[in-house]
Amino acid sequence: MASIKDVAQKAGVGVGTVSRVLNNSGYVSDETREKIEEAMKNLQYTPNELARNLYHKKSGIIAVLVPTVEIPFFAELVHNIEAELYNEGFKIMLCNTDKAHNAELEYLDMLNRHIVDGVITGVHSLDVEEYKKIKKPIVAFDRYLGEDIPVVAVDHKEGGRLAAEILLKNGCKKIVHFRGSTAVESPYHERHFEFARIMKEQGVECFDYELAWNKFDLEYYKYAVKDLFDRLDEWEFDGIFGTDLVAIECMNEVIRRHKKVPKDVKCVAYDGTYITQIVEPSVTSIVQPTKELAKEAARLICELVNGKTYKNEKVTLGVSVRKGRTTIE
Amino acid sequence: MASIKDVAQKAGVGVGTVSRVLNNSGYVSDETREKIEEAMKNLQYTPNELARNLYHKKSGIIAVLVPTVEIPFFAELVHNIEAELYNEGFKIMLCNTDKAHNAELEYLDMLNRHIVDGVITGVHSLDVEEYKKIKKPIVAFDRYLGEDIPVVAVDHKEGGRLAAEILLKNGCKKIVHFRGSTAVESPYHERHFEFARIMKEQGVECFDYELAWNKFDLEYYKYAVKDLFDRLDEWEFDGIFGTDLVAIECMNEVIRRHKKVPKDVKCVAYDGTYITQIVEPSVTSIVQPTKELAKEAARLICELVNGKTYKNEKVTLGVSVRKGRTTIE
Repeated sequence: MASIKDVAQKAGVGVGTVSRVLNNSGYVSDETREKIEEAMKNLQYTPNELARNLYHKKSGIIAVLVPTVEIPFFAELVHNIEAELYNEGFKIMLCNTDKAHNAELEYLDMLNRHIVDGVITGVHSLDVEEYKKIKKPIVAFDRYLGEDIPVVAVDHKEGGRLAAEILLKNGCKKIVHFRGSTAVESPYHERHFEFARIMKEQGVECFDYELAWNKFDLEYYKYAVKDLFDRLDEWEFDGIFGTDLVAIECMNEVIRRHKKVPKDVKCVAYDGTYITQIVEPSVTSIVQPTKELAKEAARLICELVNGKTYKNEKVTLGVSVRKGRTTIE
Repeated sequence: MASIKDVAQKAGVGVGTVSRVLNNSGYVSDETREKIEEAMKNLQYTPNELARNLYHKKSGIIAVLVPTVEIPFFAELVHNIEAELYNEGFKIMLCNTDKAHNAELEYLDMLNRHIVDGVITGVHSLDVEEYKKIKKPIVAFDRYLGEDIPVVAVDHKEGGRLAAEILLKNGCKKIVHFRGSTAVESPYHERHFEFARIMKEQGVECFDYELAWNKFDLEYYKYAVKDLFDRLDEWEFDGIFGTDLVAIECMNEVIRRHKKVPKDVKCVAYDGTYITQIVEPSVTSIVQPTKELAKEAARLICELVNGKTYKNEKVTLGVSVRKGRTTIE
């Protein structure tokens, strides 16, 4: 395999000049640059990227941490983050943190070991204190991790309000409200607070079901819905509010118990990923704009990698309503 | 920040000795090793992993190429591959190739540039000739890429046979059969050949609908189902066979047109990801064992990275049937 010396010799220049062309640093005349590029082509020279990365102290890799890409919301997010970062010249290292207790910590440690240039984290498992120790580029998705770490999230309060208004307009009087775990501090709780506040104000009864922390698989949601019906006993509801998968599973159980959707029971899902559109009836949803969320997270991590710093930065994006056929009005 | 020299000085040994400990190469007495580890701890020394990777000519990263993790089958596969490789000490670089025409080629090139140690490819977009040029660790998922590249796939012929038998047992006489694109050479065609062969043998009419190459999003499947109904004209069918998402979309269209599933129309899906279990009725499926497929792909890439070679290696795994409520018998 050709070395940098071979290239220098063939082009009739010094190794330092070839290095300047490879690293795009310092002045090299156009004529010399062309000669070097010609020599590289003739010799089929492939620069050792690891060596170049070492020189630049950059790996060109951003770690992306999510609980699991098996959940459609995280799949959409990861897909869009990867596409955004690809356009900025970065590759992503994917970590599904659900598989191992200490995986999150291990990926954060890769920042220190120069394996990745930055981390975008969408997981809610590690102690905030661990993040505060790390003075490297980190962007948080939907979680507060300290004043140096920018947060990207949607306006969850607005999302909660929109969901409440739809169910009220549809005349719901008794609603099952699936809540995220209160074990972590996250902007997502705002939707639950706002939803509950409005319902209380309007005199609508809510049955709150708090989901377990960091569990996202279908098996768990099936269990939760079964558990819900056991706990409800004779209490009959006419409205459902929860994230896509649990809302769908609850709606299906209603249908299996021979009730009609939307005639007897209305349903509003939160997130609005494609799965709300592959079920019958399609589910009215509060949609998180995953493409724009990914864009903002990618922008922020690129800025941090390039040396910019932030204090208490929070980027908040709007949500939208996509009407399905689980509501009438 | 402490350097390797600082560590050597503090431990009272040479830099070479520290290097041997870091790289776990050559003899170092237990006593000396302890002294060095103690010095590293005291100085909070973090080895520069990039430099170590350069020394070992290993990055510890495997690139995983799929069309997009937004498709549940690929999400399951990626999730499981990542978990398997994590246990073997590898991280994964994820590439969704649907975003850019030349992304696949760029990731293959990273093998040459020592950014990744191996590639597991589950995409069907690049010319086979490109793969033949690369003499590096590559494992193909569901595709023939040359004799040096091991293939992991399920027994698609068996899958086609099982699907055909279920629909026959349910008395179907006119079946819509969604086929994968014939633009690429893949083991998956075997399920279509076997399915069509059995149906012909049994005198059952099939309407074959060939799906576009490398299109996997819901929008496309919605279009395809609409296009199918336009083309069918007055031809009425009583059975559906296709991959999860398109089978579900077709079933939903049947329901929207006021037919009953499974009474009027039966449905069998191929892949059997979780989405076949979140729709009503849940879809009878031929299930690909994504966990085992991931395990085999991970095992093979690790072996190749460690220097093993293969000729015409093909690992074939069995499929299973998961009965849903879209069939009766």
